[in-house]
Amino acid sequence: MVKAIEGNLLVGQSGGPTPVINASLAGVISEAQRHSNVKTIYGMENGIEGLLQGKLKKIPEMSEKNIQLLASTPASALGSCRYKVQDDDYPKLLQIFKENNIRYFFYIGGNDSMDTCNKIAKLAEAEGYEMYVMGVPKTIDNDLPLTDHCPGFGSAARFTAVSTLGTGRDLEAMKTFDDVTIVEIMGRHAGWLAASSALLKRDVKDAPHLIYLPERTFKMDKFIEDVKTVHKELGYVFVAIGEGIRDESGEFIGAKNAVKDAFGHIAIALSEGPAAYLARTVNKELGLQARYNRSGTIQRAYSESVSDADRNEAFMVGQKAVELAVKGETGKMVTLVRGEGTEYKCTTGTASLEKVANVEKVVPDEFINAEGNFVTEAFKEYALPLLGSNLPEYYRFK
Amino acid sequence: MVKAIEGNLLVGQSGGPTPVINASLAGVISEAQRHSNVKTIYGMENGIEGLLQGKLKKIPEMSEKNIQLLASTPASALGSCRYKVQDDDYPKLLQIFKENNIRYFFYIGGNDSMDTCNKIAKLAEAEGYEMYVMGVPKTIDNDLPLTDHCPGFGSAARFTAVSTLGTGRDLEAMKTFDDVTIVEIMGRHAGWLAASSALLKRDVKDAPHLIYLPERTFKMDKFIEDVKTVHKELGYVFVAIGEGIRDESGEFIGAKNAVKDAFGHIAIALSEGPAAYLARTVNKELGLQARYNRSGTIQRAYSESVSDADRNEAFMVGQKAVELAVKGETGKMVTLVRGEGTEYKCTTGTASLEKVANVEKVVPDEFINAEGNFVTEAFKEYALPLLGSNLPEYYRFK
Repeated sequence: MVKAIEGNLLVGQSGGPTPVINASLAGVISEAQRHSNVKTIYGMENGIEGLLQGKLKKIPEMSEKNIQLLASTPASALGSCRYKVQDDDYPKLLQIFKENNIRYFFYIGGNDSMDTCNKIAKLAEAEGYEMYVMGVPKTIDNDLPLTDHCPGFGSAARFTAVSTLGTGRDLEAMKTFDDVTIVEIMGRHAGWLAASSALLKRDVKDAPHLIYLPERTFKMDKFIEDVKTVHKELGYVFVAIGEGIRDESGEFIGAKNAVKDAFGHIAIALSEGPAAYLARTVNKELGLQARYNRSGTIQRAYSESVSDADRNEAFMVGQKAVELAVKGETGKMVTLVRGEGTEYKCTTGTASLEKVANVEKVVPDEFINAEGNFVTEAFKEYALPLLGSNLPEYYRFK
Repeated sequence: MVKAIEGNLLVGQSGGPTPVINASLAGVISEAQRHSNVKTIYGMENGIEGLLQGKLKKIPEMSEKNIQLLASTPASALGSCRYKVQDDDYPKLLQIFKENNIRYFFYIGGNDSMDTCNKIAKLAEAEGYEMYVMGVPKTIDNDLPLTDHCPGFGSAARFTAVSTLGTGRDLEAMKTFDDVTIVEIMGRHAGWLAASSALLKRDVKDAPHLIYLPERTFKMDKFIEDVKTVHKELGYVFVAIGEGIRDESGEFIGAKNAVKDAFGHIAIALSEGPAAYLARTVNKELGLQARYNRSGTIQRAYSESVSDADRNEAFMVGQKAVELAVKGETGKMVTLVRGEGTEYKCTTGTASLEKVANVEKVVPDEFINAEGNFVTEAFKEYALPLLGSNLPEYYRFK
């Protein structure tokens, strides 16, 4: 066994937060504190963007109580960023690593962050600087490849499923007044979270009745026809849509006058958005009373619906990243591997950062129904265990 | 003591649901099952509107387990309505009461429902038909008079406070990318719920930083100035607004092209809404990246953030209504009376329906700061205990 190098550890968080991204950070810190060759733990303030400005925060020894408190705090406690590292940033990063004797590097993030992480691992190797670099997965979008699922997804999915079930009951109760509720769910290219709206549906009356994912071209005529059909049948219609649905020409629905963000992407969050637009369209075309819910960042920051499975796994991947790095692993992302048994259980594995970087895993065909307006049982089997335990049950009068 | 009349009981739910409105229904049913002079329990399907169509649902004996399950189910399990009773509906109602030997009548609702309830009590009295009529308060808007607060408010306030704290941390983490989050909170005339966004704020960095309530005229210039000031100070700004904010001319903000609902009211839920409108305005006027959250009916239907105090009180007011009716009380609404001790505790009282009907209790001056852009400590002292126990605590690095 290799004698691990002594030195300092640097950890950062990147991209959109999740309700359990700090559990991964807590896992990193907790495990690092157990290794005598890890000297000082530094956190990046606002990820790589802050690091490039020299913003390293020394993290003092944390008590078990504070580790637990951090693990149950939503959003990125170190601060996050959406910064795309430029070619000429790399020499600067190397200099910072050397100056601070950083020998262990951990980046908690999604696709873009794994790309950054990969480039940093390659940089250290090419320059002959001994540093162990590990990616720690997180994203509510669940779109990282080579892992059964992503830490953060289960908790956001639970919020989506529970809020859909509840607001579905609300709509059902109000059916003599309201007709249609449309909920807009995060996920620009991947519809995993929108699909999760169906996970607690146990009954034909339960919400949702229709689901439209970014994986399928959105056809307005078909949508209007679907809403009409369900309304005729039940007297109310609950529709879940992924925020990133697009029409035949590839245009985002309801984002006509949207401004662009720093990356030149259409900022859906700054546009009217598809739910508001579709609610108006339903009202105009069918004369039905339609409202929309767009909980926005609440989906990824709600702390009272965290999946216990998700929180434990998020902690575990952080812990494992340190354990492996100290053993000499580098250039990998920790993955979750589902056990074969009937009872849900995940262990960890690893995947090469090279293979993870910039690959987006969208919802596969077998999880979407033929009509493209709902999910399949196979999806439910895959995703339900990720919501964790103590799922709500509701009463219904016969 | 009066010997209570033998006969049947009728209970209904009205108006917008709450996360605990079924706890009140469970309280009514549970207590009614203990009184031998209550023969059959009937529920109105979709309130008075369904009742007028003869939609009475016989509720069979419920087990303790089902009572508890019902009590933790959000939305109105019997179905609700927004029907304004017409003068010529009353004779029809009386006939239905007589045909079904209804001797106990309970209506769980807000201002409009208490008016309906009052008229029904008067009708029975005028016609010499012996029936005991009690109002059971519910509304997330907290705008019923003569009660310390309204069942339903505490749970919706908890969702508001927890989601604000979490999304505030999200914004703080993303401050190198996002600048402003605006959250739209229910409450057309009364800003109690929007005010509650501040209840878990413990730090100047915590959200929200600005709150605008329908109780104050919304001035765009002042708002833009406020946002600018906070942004300069912290680098990010979290704004909470009541959906019903209006400008100097009394126009709802962001509801320019709104359609009207069945009552001829501007349907804010069908309009763009103030948050989307203000996010666009901030972006245009200040060049800041602004997003908005509008969780809509999730605020009143979320079952994983129910306040235990609220659920217990909702059950208690339902129970008490039956207990009092069987003792011969009529024409009253059950109220919540706060104890004088340092530890929060409520008991029940009663108020005449006459005095409750159609009166709206808005947020008083002492709960709003002088600038009209935040709440006072007095408000926090009043409202914090209503959120219940086990409030979340988050970690923050020094």
